[in-house]
Order: sequence, then C-alpha cells, then structure tokens
Amino acid sequence: MVLTAEILSIGDELLSGDIVNTNLAEIARALRQHGVVVERALSVPDEIDAISRALRAALSVVDRCIVTGGLGPTSDDLTAAAVAAACDLPLVRHPEAEAQVIAYFAARGRSADATQLRQADLPEGAAVLANPIGSAPGFACALGRGEVICLPGVPREMRALLAEVVLPRLAATGRLRPRARRIYRTLGLGEADLAAHIEPIAAAARGTRALRQLVVHYRVAAPEVFITLEAGDAAAAEAALRELDAPIQARLGGVLYGIGEAELAVRVGRALAEHGLRVAAAESCTGGRVAALLTATAGSSSYFHGGVVAYDNAIKTALLGVPEATLAAHGAVSEATARAMAEGLLRAFTGHAELAVAITGIAGPGGASPDKPVGTVDFAVADAAGTTHRRLHLRGDRPTIQHSAAMWALRLVWDRLVQRGLGRVLELDR
Amino acid sequence: MVLTAEILSIGDELLSGDIVNTNLAEIARALRQHGVVVERALSVPDEIDAISRALRAALSVVDRCIVTGGLGPTSDDLTAAAVAAACDLPLVRHPEAEAQVIAYFAARGRSADATQLRQADLPEGAAVLANPIGSAPGFACALGRGEVICLPGVPREMRALLAEVVLPRLAATGRLRPRARRIYRTLGLGEADLAAHIEPIAAAARGTRALRQLVVHYRVAAPEVFITLEAGDAAAAEAALRELDAPIQARLGGVLYGIGEAELAVRVGRALAEHGLRVAAAESCTGGRVAALLTATAGSSSYFHGGVVAYDNAIKTALLGVPEATLAAHGAVSEATARAMAEGLLRAFTGHAELAVAITGIAGPGGASPDKPVGTVDFAVADAAGTTHRRLHLRGDRPTIQHSAAMWALRLVWDRLVQRGLGRVLELDR
Repeated sequence: MVLTAEILSIGDELLSGDIVNTNLAEIARALRQHGVVVERALSVPDEIDAISRALRAALSVVDRCIVTGGLGPTSDDLTAAAVAAACDLPLVRHPEAEAQVIAYFAARGRSADATQLRQADLPEGAAVLANPIGSAPGFACALGRGEVICLPGVPREMRALLAEVVLPRLAATGRLRPRARRIYRTLGLGEADLAAHIEPIAAAARGTRALRQLVVHYRVAAPEVFITLEAGDAAAAEAALRELDAPIQARLGGVLYGIGEAELAVRVGRALAEHGLRVAAAESCTGGRVAALLTATAGSSSYFHGGVVAYDNAIKTALLGVPEATLAAHGAVSEATARAMAEGLLRAFTGHAELAVAITGIAGPGGASPDKPVGTVDFAVADAAGTTHRRLHLRGDRPTIQHSAAMWALRLVWDRLVQRGLGRVLELDR
Repeated sequence: MVLTAEILSIGDELLSGDIVNTNLAEIARALRQHGVVVERALSVPDEIDAISRALRAALSVVDRCIVTGGLGPTSDDLTAAAVAAACDLPLVRHPEAEAQVIAYFAARGRSADATQLRQADLPEGAAVLANPIGSAPGFACALGRGEVICLPGVPREMRALLAEVVLPRLAATGRLRPRARRIYRTLGLGEADLAAHIEPIAAAARGTRALRQLVVHYRVAAPEVFITLEAGDAAAAEAALRELDAPIQARLGGVLYGIGEAELAVRVGRALAEHGLRVAAAESCTGGRVAALLTATAGSSSYFHGGVVAYDNAIKTALLGVPEATLAAHGAVSEATARAMAEGLLRAFTGHAELAVAITGIAGPGGASPDKPVGTVDFAVADAAGTTHRRLHLRGDRPTIQHSAAMWALRLVWDRLVQRGLGRVLELDR
C-alpha cells in the first residue's frame, strides 16, 4: 500500500496571516515527487491541545504526519510537548540532541545557554533527526497508524532535514509509488479557454488503457496557467502521456511555452547559454523584475551581463538614449519609446548583449489616461535582425501587472529564440 | 461570543506542492484584522467526499468555514457539489448567478457557453455572492453551527469578494472582536537573541493588568525577524502595548527598524518622498531586487528614478565608471568596488538621485574563494556627505542570499536616513 501523509504546520503566524506557508508547498512537492500521497494539510496555532488533537486525528487516518514549526528555543515552541502529550510520553532531555545543540553553538564560537538546550527536550524514545544546518534537532515518534516526523519551521533547515533525513527514512518503508505526471506551461490564454482546447484531447486519451484514469488540473499563476496531466501509477503511463505533447502543442500553438518543471526564465537562460548569446533588459514599469527573474538561476552571468532600470523618463534618455522628442511626441508608454529603449540598450551593451528587451507601461493604480488605461504595457525585443513591438493590456493590481509584464518580457524573448530555432518548446527538462 | 472560523482551501495543486497557498494568508490576515478568530486552516484535494467531510467537521466546531478554490468552470471545480452534499441539498441553476455569468461575458463581447454557465449551479437556497471582477459567483450556505462561505481561488477575485461582500457579511453578526496587536520589525539578529532581549520586557509587562495575557511571537523571514506582541481584546491594551515601544527600542537599538505593518521599502520610500530625496541602486548580486522592492509601491517614481543592474564587471566599468584597475586589484566583491559602484552611480544619476546604494557579492552556489565564501556581500551607501561601506556574511541558499542582500541594502539606506534625522523608527504606520 502506498504511503499516505498529512502535513501539519504549527504556528499562530499561519492563522494570523503574518506568514505565507511556503514550507507546505515544498514538503508537499517533495513527498509527491517521491511517491507519497498527501491527503490533507492542516495548520493549527501554537497550542499544545490543538497540536496533539491534530496529531492523533491525523495518525488515525494516514501513515505519516509531517510536522513543521514550533521546534525553536522560544516560549511559543511547543511541538515537542504536544507530541509527547499525543503519544502519552514524558518529555526528557536527549543527550544525543543536547550534544548537537552544543556542537552547533560551539562551531559558532558560542556556548548554548539553558534556553537553547531546551531544544533537546524531546518525547521519551523519540528518534533524533540531526539538523545539518540549524540548532533545533528534528525527531520522529511512533503514533497511531505510523509515525509523527517533526521538522523545524525555518525553511532552509526544514529543507535540509527533509532531503537528507526524512525522504530516506520514508523510502526505507518500500511503500513509495511515484505517479506519471506532465506539466504543460502556458502564457496567453485563460483557464476556460485552455480547458476548451485540452478537454477533447483528454477525453480521447481516457479511451486508451494506459490513460484511463487521466486527471487534468489547471493552475492559474497570472499570467501563466499550468496544465497538469496525471495518470495511473505505472511507468507505462509516462510514455502514453508523452504522446499527448504533439496534439496539445498543435492545439495551443505559441501559448504553450514549455513542458515540465523548469520556469520560463530558466528555459530562456538555457537556450541563450547553449548558443553563447546574452540578453539585457531595459525596464520601466517592471522595475528590475526581469533582471531578478533572470539572475535567480545560478550561472546566469553567462547570459545576462546586466540591465538598466529606467523608471524616470530622464533616465530613459540619459542611459538608453531615448530621444526626448520621442518621449514628448508619444509618451513614455508607447511603441516608439519601447523600441528606442530596446535599441538604445543594445547599443549601450555592445559586446554584452545580442538581444535586448524593453518594457514600459502603466502598473497603476495611478498614471492612466483615457487611451492608456492601467495595465497598458509596450514591449520591444531587439536583436541584430531588427526590433519587434507588442502592446498588451494586462489585468490585475499593481504587483500582478508588474509580474505579468516581467513574465511577458521573458515570453517575448523566448518567442524570438524559438523563431530563430534556438529554443524548443517540446524539449523535456527533467 | 467572538466569531470563530476555519479556512478550507480546495485543490489538488495545494497538496501536490505546485502552488503556494497565498490565499490562506490573505484571508487569515483579513479575518484577524476584523476580529474573527481563525482556529484552523485545512487544505483538501478536489474530491467531493473529502471536501464535504471537511465542511461538516469544520462547522461542528467553528461558526464560519471560509472556502476558497474549486469554483471555476472546469471539470476539477467541485466545491458547489461538495457543499450541496455536505448540506444535503440539490445542486440547482440559480438565475441570479446565471445572469452574473452571462453579464460577465457580455461585458467582454462574448457569450457564456454551457461550460461557463455550470458556474451558476449552486446548492438550493444558497445566497449568491456577486463576484465583482470574475465570472465565478461566490455563495453562502447554512450548515452546522453557522455558515459555509465559498470564494473563488483566483487571488484577485477572492480578494475582491472577501473585502466587498464577505467581511461586511461577517460584521453584520455583531460578533467581531479585534485584538490589540503590535509588530516590531527587526533585521540583524536571530530569533533566540531577540527573545533574550524581549522576554524580560514581556515578563514585566505581564505584571500589569492591561497586559496580563500578553503573548509574544517571533516570525523569521530571513533576513528579517518580526516580533508580534498580542494582548487582550480590549482597547485598553492598545495604549499599554504602545508603552513597550521605548524599552524595546532601547534593548534592540538599530536592529529595530520599525513598528507596524509597513515594509522596509515603504518606510524608506516614505522618508525619501517626505524630504524630496531620490535613491538609486547599483546592483550586482541582487540583480534588480532592490529596484523591484522599491518600485513595488505605487508612487515610487517620486523617490526612485532608476538603477543599473551591473552583473558583469564590464558593465560596472561601462555604466558606473568602476575603474578596471579597482576590479583587477580588489575583485568585483570588495569594499573598493562597492564604493566605486555607489559613487559612480551617484555621478551617473546627477539630478536624479541624492543617495546611491551599491551591492556586490557572491550569491552562490558557485563563485566562492577561500577568503570570500558564498554569502560575502559588500555594500556601499553614498550621498553628498560621503560613502560608507559594510561587508556582511549572509547565510542560506542563493534566493535567500539574494533577498537578504536586497533587504540589507534597504536597511543601510534606512540607517543613513535615520542618522540624518529623515526617518523615524518609532513612527507608527497604521
């Protein structure tokens, strides 16, 4: 039987809205990739009773309860006490955990005080899970149908413990069953329009044996929509899923920019690096977001040497050479300005960029005019072959428009690379 | 009795880790600010049984179950059917909802097809909650101790319905009880070190009547740590909490950069705007993130005219005038280069920036040397009075180091503004 899990996140800050639970998504993704079925995810406050009730309820239904948060040295760190209560065990000082806390501080030239040592008080008989990078040890305890596994809430500590200790521990059960799964990455159509294209293909696929249980999900992360096809638990479904690539691409055309996990910025970077090209960005309304997306990837210095954030008109003129007359005649948000920004950047970055993308628009909420409402964004892509322009009317609030414009800028660079035969949509990336 | 709630998030994508549940944090924050106690938050897959079981369980304990997700037109949108099952009601076409779906598409010059009209099939007797900006109507249904309230999963639609329809609906119960709450924003010390400073102050405060039930939370969002003090539900606690500002600032010194909700970039921007100053950023390892943080705020064009992303050394020389000899002698990550970047930017932006911040460092995982490990970052802040430098050794993976460096850059600008008497740490922002 496949291993099932609940993810239990602990912390008042999750229920007060002070924090976005990114740990949950990371743990869920890692478990899914390794073939654990995550049945539920629950967040509860820093209260011993609420935590221990949740633990008992979880382990009456699932095989593992993966807990994050509440493991630190401060007074609101109650996870160990709550697990002890749920398991009817006393909380005792674990010498192995104590040694880890002491070693952690010693490595930093400090001594662990009584507050820090509290992190070594764990339920009696718990297995201590060494924290490779932080002071709070994780631990595991038998309960109900299986086991409670507790990780720190600090994301990089959680991540390290999960990868190095927890996943091997789960794999040792021999009950992991990864499912066949394929993600189609799109930018340019809404969920319903995509569904109208995809559902007939999915319906036909369900007529075949390997894909009888095909499930389709649409995930909106504006401006992108990700279509996930999931099927069976057999390796046979992998190949059958892959055969849907061609019909899906035929239906979606340029809206489909890639298949698999890799983000658009990574695909753009990889294509540029493969062909020894560099891109630069001249950003107005995106305010550095295109540069940030491109530099998120290690090694990006090989295809991104820099950019200019030209938020003010005078900077567009001073650093990018946009003629004042162009700005006066057409305005900052115009085809002429976008083209001049991209071409000016390409000149300024001679020897450092073979492609340039420029973005100028109205992110809102202010700055609109009757003919240029909030969300109006002009893009230009320039290379040695010439400059192309596109105007889009993006929707949403300021952060959504800024992010959408940055993603569209990457998409237009990607389109140029694909047109030039330098990027391939159907290339699988994992 | 204060109104209690559970937030129920629906979608396989939440349990597969494909999506981070930002809706949860937004809803939780809005409910908390309005005085609803959120007791739990649960995520379940797109399965009618799992959803309806969760609804029944929630409404046997809390007064409201706020549901997001699963309201769209596609085949995995099952919320309405699940609510109908939980309430033992049939799913019927609601003419009012149907009219809204038709009007939504008509306003966009399209007609709603049968798939779209499915969104008007709701539990019999449900109250239709008009979606001000999307096609999927929300709805509310009586169940158990109170009511199920269903919102779309698309964040901006959820946000609009929550603010315009749901919060007024909850306020109409007369059972909202906002709590006194104060957030101290810090950058520069870890959770345990902060606790050592804060706990004695908190312990003393609990000796007073108004703050007897004082609760302290520490939230780590590297490189920041937010300390939240929460007390009672009385307006009296507000004033008592405020009296802790001075002792807390005295203990934390420069580590405390502000009190309240406003983010550091907003505080920096506000202080600059108040005094008619502009800042510019010369970014290497932060790759545009400082510019992105500054331009996230509407109106930032008054204090941010632009910046240069100088990822490659040659761009540092070409656009910022960093001497090649400086780069050759000291390397890109050095005090000399950081100073030259900041001063060069200030020259390049004459008339457009009175302050400049430069960031050059090793975000990793590659690029380290024995004397400059990953996380080594040199910062310089330049204004007419001179240039200051600081080297930090930041921890974490690449995205953490990049974000931390960008936040530290803002912090160093903030420090300069505070030193010059242009920014005030104790100013409350809400």
